[in-house]
Amino acid sequence: MYRTVTCGELRLSDAGKTVTLAGWVQRIRKMGGMTFIDLRDRYGLTQLAFNQQDNADIFAEANRLGREYVLQVTGKVSERYAKNPQMPTGDIEIMVDKLNVLNPALTPPFTIEDESDGGDDLRMKYRYLDLRRQCVRRNLELRHKFAFEVRRYLDEHGFLEVETPVLVNSTPEGARDFVVPSRMNKGQFYALPQSPQTLKQLLMVSGFDRYFQIVKCFRDEDLRADRQPEFTQIDCEMSFVEQEDILQMFEGMTRHLFKTLKGLDIPQLPRMTWADAMKYYGSDKPDLRFEMRFVELMDVLKGHVFSVFDNAAYIGGICCKGAAHYTRKQIDALTEFVKRPQIGAKGLVYARVEQDGTVKSSVDKFYSQEVLQEMKKAMQAEAGDLILILSGDDAMRTRKQLCELRLEMGSQLGLRDKNKFACLWVIDFPMYEWSDEEQRLMAMHHPFTSPKPEDIPLLDTDPAAVRANAYDMVINGVEVGGGSIRIHDAKLQEKVFEILGFTPEQAQTKFGFLMNAFKYGAPPHGGLAYGLDRFVSLFAGLDSIRDCIAFPKNNQGRDVMLGAPGIIDQVQFDELGIQIVRNEE
Amino acid sequence: MYRTVTCGELRLSDAGKTVTLAGWVQRIRKMGGMTFIDLRDRYGLTQLAFNQQDNADIFAEANRLGREYVLQVTGKVSERYAKNPQMPTGDIEIMVDKLNVLNPALTPPFTIEDESDGGDDLRMKYRYLDLRRQCVRRNLELRHKFAFEVRRYLDEHGFLEVETPVLVNSTPEGARDFVVPSRMNKGQFYALPQSPQTLKQLLMVSGFDRYFQIVKCFRDEDLRADRQPEFTQIDCEMSFVEQEDILQMFEGMTRHLFKTLKGLDIPQLPRMTWADAMKYYGSDKPDLRFEMRFVELMDVLKGHVFSVFDNAAYIGGICCKGAAHYTRKQIDALTEFVKRPQIGAKGLVYARVEQDGTVKSSVDKFYSQEVLQEMKKAMQAEAGDLILILSGDDAMRTRKQLCELRLEMGSQLGLRDKNKFACLWVIDFPMYEWSDEEQRLMAMHHPFTSPKPEDIPLLDTDPAAVRANAYDMVINGVEVGGGSIRIHDAKLQEKVFEILGFTPEQAQTKFGFLMNAFKYGAPPHGGLAYGLDRFVSLFAGLDSIRDCIAFPKNNQGRDVMLGAPGIIDQVQFDELGIQIVRNEE
Repeated sequence: MYRTVTCGELRLSDAGKTVTLAGWVQRIRKMGGMTFIDLRDRYGLTQLAFNQQDNADIFAEANRLGREYVLQVTGKVSERYAKNPQMPTGDIEIMVDKLNVLNPALTPPFTIEDESDGGDDLRMKYRYLDLRRQCVRRNLELRHKFAFEVRRYLDEHGFLEVETPVLVNSTPEGARDFVVPSRMNKGQFYALPQSPQTLKQLLMVSGFDRYFQIVKCFRDEDLRADRQPEFTQIDCEMSFVEQEDILQMFEGMTRHLFKTLKGLDIPQLPRMTWADAMKYYGSDKPDLRFEMRFVELMDVLKGHVFSVFDNAAYIGGICCKGAAHYTRKQIDALTEFVKRPQIGAKGLVYARVEQDGTVKSSVDKFYSQEVLQEMKKAMQAEAGDLILILSGDDAMRTRKQLCELRLEMGSQLGLRDKNKFACLWVIDFPMYEWSDEEQRLMAMHHPFTSPKPEDIPLLDTDPAAVRANAYDMVINGVEVGGGSIRIHDAKLQEKVFEILGFTPEQAQTKFGFLMNAFKYGAPPHGGLAYGLDRFVSLFAGLDSIRDCIAFPKNNQGRDVMLGAPGIIDQVQFDELGIQIVRNEE
Repeated sequence: MYRTVTCGELRLSDAGKTVTLAGWVQRIRKMGGMTFIDLRDRYGLTQLAFNQQDNADIFAEANRLGREYVLQVTGKVSERYAKNPQMPTGDIEIMVDKLNVLNPALTPPFTIEDESDGGDDLRMKYRYLDLRRQCVRRNLELRHKFAFEVRRYLDEHGFLEVETPVLVNSTPEGARDFVVPSRMNKGQFYALPQSPQTLKQLLMVSGFDRYFQIVKCFRDEDLRADRQPEFTQIDCEMSFVEQEDILQMFEGMTRHLFKTLKGLDIPQLPRMTWADAMKYYGSDKPDLRFEMRFVELMDVLKGHVFSVFDNAAYIGGICCKGAAHYTRKQIDALTEFVKRPQIGAKGLVYARVEQDGTVKSSVDKFYSQEVLQEMKKAMQAEAGDLILILSGDDAMRTRKQLCELRLEMGSQLGLRDKNKFACLWVIDFPMYEWSDEEQRLMAMHHPFTSPKPEDIPLLDTDPAAVRANAYDMVINGVEVGGGSIRIHDAKLQEKVFEILGFTPEQAQTKFGFLMNAFKYGAPPHGGLAYGLDRFVSLFAGLDSIRDCIAFPKNNQGRDVMLGAPGIIDQVQFDELGIQIVRNEE
C-alpha cells in the first residue's frame, strides 16, 4: 500500500499521528514561507503543509509541483491554525516531511472542480479527467449503490439474477437492431438485444419463477438528448402472479431504494388509470409534484360567440396558483412557448383573478363577468390565480399541448423541486393504439401483453377499447419502468395476433419461437423493466442520463474519448465476408 | 398470486391446512382408485393425491393430465401413509379438491429428470425445457449467489461497480474482435470489448481507486470445448497498491466465497513461482489436490548406455503412490496416452517398486539394480509405488507432457475429487515469452504489466529473464483469475515497448490512447480478472462452463434455440451500408 490513510478520514483526534497519504494535487497555495496543497483522492481532500523553515528542500520541491501531480506524502497530523468547517478534514493538516512524486501531470485542459471551465465536448474527450470531478464521480457512486440495493432487495425476495446472451437474433417488430457479422457463420448476423424480453419469458417457461437481471440493452435509433445506443435495464419477471403482485413487489423495491439511498419514507404509490392521466394531465407520465389538474371547460365556455372555442373539440384550463402577477410580457412568452412547432398550439387564452375576485381575461369581449365567474368556480381559482386555457380540434393533441404548458408553469413557479419525489403507478393502459402510418391497430406495450380479463369480450366488438394488464411506474413525470402481465393462453394469444392483423402463418413466422416454447407448459407470468440510467438520474437530480454513465456516447453515437466507432482492417472484412457499399458517383 | 405456498415448503406440521399450489406435473402414478402426481416448481416437489372415492370428477380429470402440464391445485395437507424421507416434503401430500389446468403441455422431447434421455443437441435446442431440470437450474442458482457474494465482498471493501461500454473500439494486439457496423457513422465499426482492460485503467487515472465489474466480454475465436464467444469476467482494479495488497484482497474474496457458498474454510493460499510451477508440475496452473511432483532424473539416469535418456535434454519422473499393481495392459494404455499427437511423447518408461523393495523397470537391461535403487531414492518411492518417466530433447515440452501424464494418473487414482479444493497463487510470471512465429519477444500478460522492481536492470541485459509483477489464482488445475501490477512510469513503459520491438511511433499508434491519459497523472495501480463462468463451474463441480450458462452457444458459435446468428433484411444492409461479399464462382 502506498498509503496508511485516505484523504477523507483524518480528524482532530488523529493529531500527532504519522501518516502516509497518496493522491492528486487539487490546489496549491503559496503564502510566503508556507505552501499549502490540497491532496485529493476518491474519499476527500486533505491539506498538506510545507514550511520553508522546517524543511527547505521539501518546501522547494512542493513549489515545483503542478495541478494533478500524483503524490505520496508522509508527515505528522497537526491541528490547523485556521480551521475549515466546510471540509470533513478541515481541522487538521499534514506537516509533510517526505514527498514522493509518483507521477507528474500535464496541465489538464479544464479545471477539475465541480464548476469546471470545460465545455461538454472537451470534457467528453477527456472523460477520464472529467470523472475526477467530485460531482461526476458522486453520480457513479450513487449508481453503484443503487444497483447494489436493487440486487439486495430482489435477492431477499427470491429473485435469481440470470445472465442472458448479448449475441442473439434479430427481433421482429421492435426498434432497429445493432447487428454483428458472424465469422464462423459467414453471411449471418447476430443482433444485440433490445431487451431480454423473450429470454426472460423463456426462463418463466423453464420454471425460474422469479428472474431479474441488470443488463445492457441496445437500440440503433436516432438519438435524442436523453437516449443512448446502449442503456441499462433492471429487467424482472415473475410466474404465477397477477398484476397486483407485481405492483406490490416493485413498489416495495422502490420504497427500499428511497429509504436506503435517500433516507426517504415514500407514501404508498397512488394509482391512476391511463384514461385519467390523459384526462387530467394530458400525459401517461404525469408529474405529480404539483397538482394543476386540467379542468375541462367545454360546458362553460362554448356557445358565447367566441368562434375559436365554439369550434373546438376540447377546451381545457389549468389554474396557476398565485400567478396573477404574471406580466403581459411573461404571458406573451408563454403564448410563444405553446405556439412553438414542437408543441403546436394556435394560441393561449388567459384570465387573472383580481384581488376583488373579478376575472380579467384576454377574451373579455366575448364573455360576461358572469360566465367568467362560472369558469373561476369550475377552475377552483381564487384571488391572485392565473388561469391558462388551450383549445383545439383534436382533444388528445390539445391535452398534450396543455401538458407541456402545465409542466412549463410548474417549472416557472418552482413546483418541480428535484429533491421532492412524487411516484405513482399508471395502470390500465389500452391494449392497442391506432397507427395512421400502418393503418392498423398496434400493440401499445407488446403483443404478448394480456388484456384485462373483464375486457376480453370487447376484443370481438371494440378492440380499441380493450384495456391491458399493463402498468408504468412514474416518478416526477419520468417513466422509470413499465411492464405487463403476459398472455399464457394460446387461444387468447391467437386472437390478439388476429386483431393486430397477422395471419396465423405470419404470427408463426414472427413469434413462433416463443409460441412454440409456450406449448410445453407456460405458467401465468408477468414482469417489468426499469431504465436504470433514468432511475439513477432521478435520484441524483440530473438533467441527463449521460451524467450517471461513466463513458457515454454523444448524439452521433460516438465515444469521442475512445474514438469509437472507427475503421477496421481489410483482414477483418475478409474474415467476416463483408464489405462496405461504395456509392457510385 | 396463484398459490399460497410453493412446492418446496410444506412439512408435517402443516397437516390440516388448506393450501393452493401451482407448478408443473413431474410424474403421474396411477394405482387403481388413487392417482398421485408430483407437482414441481423451482422450490421443490409436492405430492398431490386424487382419490376416486372422494371426488370422482377430479380423479378423472387428474388421469387425463400429462407430463409438464401447468396446474393450480387447492386441497388439504395430509400426512402421508408411505413417507418419502428423500424428499423434504416427503411426509405430506395434498388431498386435492380443486384442480385448475393453467396450461396443457406437449410431451417434452426428452425427460425432465436429472438423468435425462435427451442428447446434448436436443437439450440445447429446447434449452427452456433443459433448464427445468433441477441439476441444471441449481447451477444457475449457484451462479446467482456467487455473483451476489462477489458483489457483497467487494462493496464491503470499498469497490465501486462501474459499467463500461459494450460498443467500444477495436483493441490492438489481442484476440479477434466482434465488430458492429455503425449506421450513423457509415463505414465505421464498433468492437465488442475483449475485456474492459483499458477502461478500468482509465478509471484508475480518474481516481476511482477501487473498481470492479461483473461484465460480459467477447472474443471471436475458434471455440474449444470450454470457450464461449461471450463470457463473463469479474474485472477488478485498485490504485496505490502493490502486488501484496492485491493478493491479500482477492485471497480474502476467494475465502469469502468458499465460506458462504460451500461452507469451507480454505487455508491460506500457498504461493508458487512460475518457475517452480513449471519445474515441479510442468504447468503454470498446477492441480495441487495431489502431490506427485516431478523429480528430475538427469543425474541418476544419464550415462548408462540407454541412448534415449543419454540424448535427452530432460528426464523426469513422477511417483504414483500404491500404483505398482498397474498391469502391463494399463501401462500400455498410458504409453498410448502420452504418445497421442496432442501430447506427443515418444514413449514411457516405468518402474515398479516390489514388495521387497527391489525395482522392476521397463529399462532393466540398461540399468543395474543399484542405479534403480538410486532412482527409487530420488523419487522417494516405496514398496507398491509405480514410477513413470518421460524424457525428451526439449525440457519445457517434456515437462508439459509429464504434466498431462501426472493429471491422467491423478484422475485414474481418484486424486482429483471435485469436492476437494486446492487453491494457490502462481506468481513471478516472466515478462516476455519468445514467439517463434513473430520472431520477437511478446508480452506474456500484456504490455502494461510492470516488471518486478529488482529485475528492471535486466531489461537492458537479459529481458527474457525479467519477471513480472503478474499473478494467477489457480484452483484444482484451473486458472480462475489473473492479473498484474501495471506500469505507471512513462520511461519504464517506453523501455518495455522498445523490447517488444515497437518504435516510439508504433507504440503511440497502438497504445497512444491510454499513454496520453497516463500523462495527466496516473496513480500506481494493478488488478486482476476472474473468469466467472469457470469459477462457478469449479464450485459446481462441472466439466464444462456451458452447464452454468443459461443460454450457451455451441462450438460453431450458434445458439441453436434462438437460431442465432441468422440472416438479416436487405433494409438492414442498406441502412448499414454494407453487403456480403459473394465469392465468384
